[in-house]
Amino acid sequence: MDLAIQADDVRAAAERIRPLARRTPVFTSAGFDGEAGVRAFFKCENFQRGGAFKIRGASNLILSLSEDALARGIVTYSSGNHAQAVAIAAQHVGSRATIVMPEDAPRSKMEATRSRGATIVTYNRFTDSREEIASRILAETGGTLVPPFDHPMIMAGQGTAALELIEEAGPLDALIAPVGGGGLLSGCATIAKAIDPAIRVFGAEPEGANDTFLSMQAGEPVTVAHPETIADGLRAPRPGQLTFPVLHKLVERVALVSDGEIRSAVKFLLLRLKILVEPSGAVPAAAVLFRKLPAGIRTIGVVLSGGNVDFEELAKY
Amino acid sequence: MDLAIQADDVRAAAERIRPLARRTPVFTSAGFDGEAGVRAFFKCENFQRGGAFKIRGASNLILSLSEDALARGIVTYSSGNHAQAVAIAAQHVGSRATIVMPEDAPRSKMEATRSRGATIVTYNRFTDSREEIASRILAETGGTLVPPFDHPMIMAGQGTAALELIEEAGPLDALIAPVGGGGLLSGCATIAKAIDPAIRVFGAEPEGANDTFLSMQAGEPVTVAHPETIADGLRAPRPGQLTFPVLHKLVERVALVSDGEIRSAVKFLLLRLKILVEPSGAVPAAAVLFRKLPAGIRTIGVVLSGGNVDFEELAKY
Repeated sequence: MDLAIQADDVRAAAERIRPLARRTPVFTSAGFDGEAGVRAFFKCENFQRGGAFKIRGASNLILSLSEDALARGIVTYSSGNHAQAVAIAAQHVGSRATIVMPEDAPRSKMEATRSRGATIVTYNRFTDSREEIASRILAETGGTLVPPFDHPMIMAGQGTAALELIEEAGPLDALIAPVGGGGLLSGCATIAKAIDPAIRVFGAEPEGANDTFLSMQAGEPVTVAHPETIADGLRAPRPGQLTFPVLHKLVERVALVSDGEIRSAVKFLLLRLKILVEPSGAVPAAAVLFRKLPAGIRTIGVVLSGGNVDFEELAKY
Repeated sequence: MDLAIQADDVRAAAERIRPLARRTPVFTSAGFDGEAGVRAFFKCENFQRGGAFKIRGASNLILSLSEDALARGIVTYSSGNHAQAVAIAAQHVGSRATIVMPEDAPRSKMEATRSRGATIVTYNRFTDSREEIASRILAETGGTLVPPFDHPMIMAGQGTAALELIEEAGPLDALIAPVGGGGLLSGCATIAKAIDPAIRVFGAEPEGANDTFLSMQAGEPVTVAHPETIADGLRAPRPGQLTFPVLHKLVERVALVSDGEIRSAVKFLLLRLKILVEPSGAVPAAAVLFRKLPAGIRTIGVVLSGGNVDFEELAKY
C-alpha cells in the first residue's frame, strides 16, 4: 500500500505554515546528557503557538482550503491542544471554527478555545459520540473536518517539527517523538528518513496507553479500550488508518514509560532545563532519561511536543 | 566621582567570558504584551550556565586573573547563584574555590556547589561575620576575593546580558533589571546608555527589600536592616559603594513590587511562556506586568535573571 505522505509533503507544509507556526528553538543540556548517557537535542514545541506542535498540522490543512471551503467553516473534535490549534488557525484565516468538546473538559481549555473565537459544542462522553456530532454539523454546514491526526495534511504538517530539528542539530543517530494517534511521529519519521535513511526513529508511549506498541507487534492497528495515563494527550485508543502504515514501515520500536518516569522527566526538564513541558510532551524525554532505547545511540533528537499543563496538576508532583 | 566602569569594560567582558557564559535566547510573548500593554523582550538568563546571570561577572573576573593568582585560589561568600557561578568558573580554569556559606543554606545548593569541586566553609549567620571569615582565608592563602557585586569586573561582566539583549532586540524604549546589590543593573545601564543615550533604564525591587529605592531617594546608599521577601537573591541590605553611583547617574527609577505580584509573575512566565524563572528573576517582569513604569514606553527589554527555584517552593504557589 502507498503511504499517505512523502517527504515532499512535509517540505511543502514547511512553506505553507510559515505565517502561523513558530520556528521553535532547539535546546541542549549537559546535565540531561550526563544522566541519559546520550547527547540530546530538544525540539521545544512547548514554545510553539498555542503551546504545542498541533498548530503545524492544523494550519497546514486549513491554509490549503479554498475560500469557499473556509466560508463554510471548520469542524473538529478535541478537548486538548488540537482544539486550540484549530481555533487559532481558523481565526487567522477568518473562518468559523466549531469544536466538539466533552462537557467535562477543563474550563481553562474551553475558555482558551473560546477566546480564539471558536464555537464550542459540548457532548456527554459516556452517552454521545463526538464523531456523530461532528458529522451532523458537517452535513448541516458543508464545513471541512480537521481531524486530530489521521489526515495526510495533518501528518505532513506535524513532520515539519522534525525537519526544523534536523536542520538545526545536523545529522543525528536517532529521533524520538511521542505517539498518540501517530500524526506527529508519522510526519517526523517520513522527513527524517528522507533526509538520512540511516537515522533510527523511535516512538514513545505511556505504558497505560500502549496501543501503538501493541499495534507494531501485531502488524495492524490494535485498540486499547481504556487508556489510562497522566499523559492526557496520548490517550487515543488506536493509531490511525493512515498513520499506522507509516509508523510500521519507518519506526524501529515504540519505547514504553511509566507515569512515574513521565513525572520525573517533567521535573527534570523544569528544574534543570527551566522549561515547562506537559506530561505527554515529556514522554520521549522520559524514554531517553530512563534508557529505554537500544545501545549505540550517541545523538538523538527529542520532540518535546507541548507545554500546556495546569499549575494545580503540576503542584501535585 | 568617576564611575567604576565604562561601556568598553562591558564590551571587553563580552569577549572574555565567551568560553564560559552562554548567549541566552531572547523571548517574546504576545500574551504577556497584551496583559502588560507594552512589547517585552525577555533576556532568558534562567537558561544561563548555572541557572543565572552570575556566571557573567564571576567569569569576567576569574578569567582575568594571572596564573599565579589562580594557583593561590579564589574565595567568595554567597549562599546562592553567585556561589555556583564562582565554583563553575574556578573549576573551568583549574583553580581552587572556597565558598563561605551559612550553615543553614539549602542542602541542594551546597551539593550543587560541592559537585563543582568547590570547598565550602560554613558559618553561623547569627554569630559569625562572613566577611571576617573570608578575610582570614584570604590572608592565609593569598587568594583572590570574587565579591558578589561591588567590583568593576563583576559589574562589567553582568552588563553583557544587556549588550546581547539589545543586539538581538534592536532599539528599545526602555530596559529593566532586578536590583540586589546593583551589579547586574549597573552593568546593564552602562552599556545600554552607551548604545542609546535615549533609552530609559529602570530597576525593580521587592517592596520588602527596597534599599536601592530608598538610596535613590536619599542620593546615597541606605541600609535596610532586615530585608524580607520571597525574592531571596535580592536581599542585599544596601547597594554597593561602586554600583550605587552608576545607578544614581543612569537609572531613572526603581519600581517596587509586592511578593504577591512576584508570585503572579512567576506563574505567568511558567504557564504562558513555559519557562521557569525564580522569584528574584521575575521581579522586573512583575513590575512590567503590574504596570509600575511610567506611560509612554512601547518596547522594553526585561532581564529574567535566573531560574533556580526548589520544586517544593514552587508547589506552594
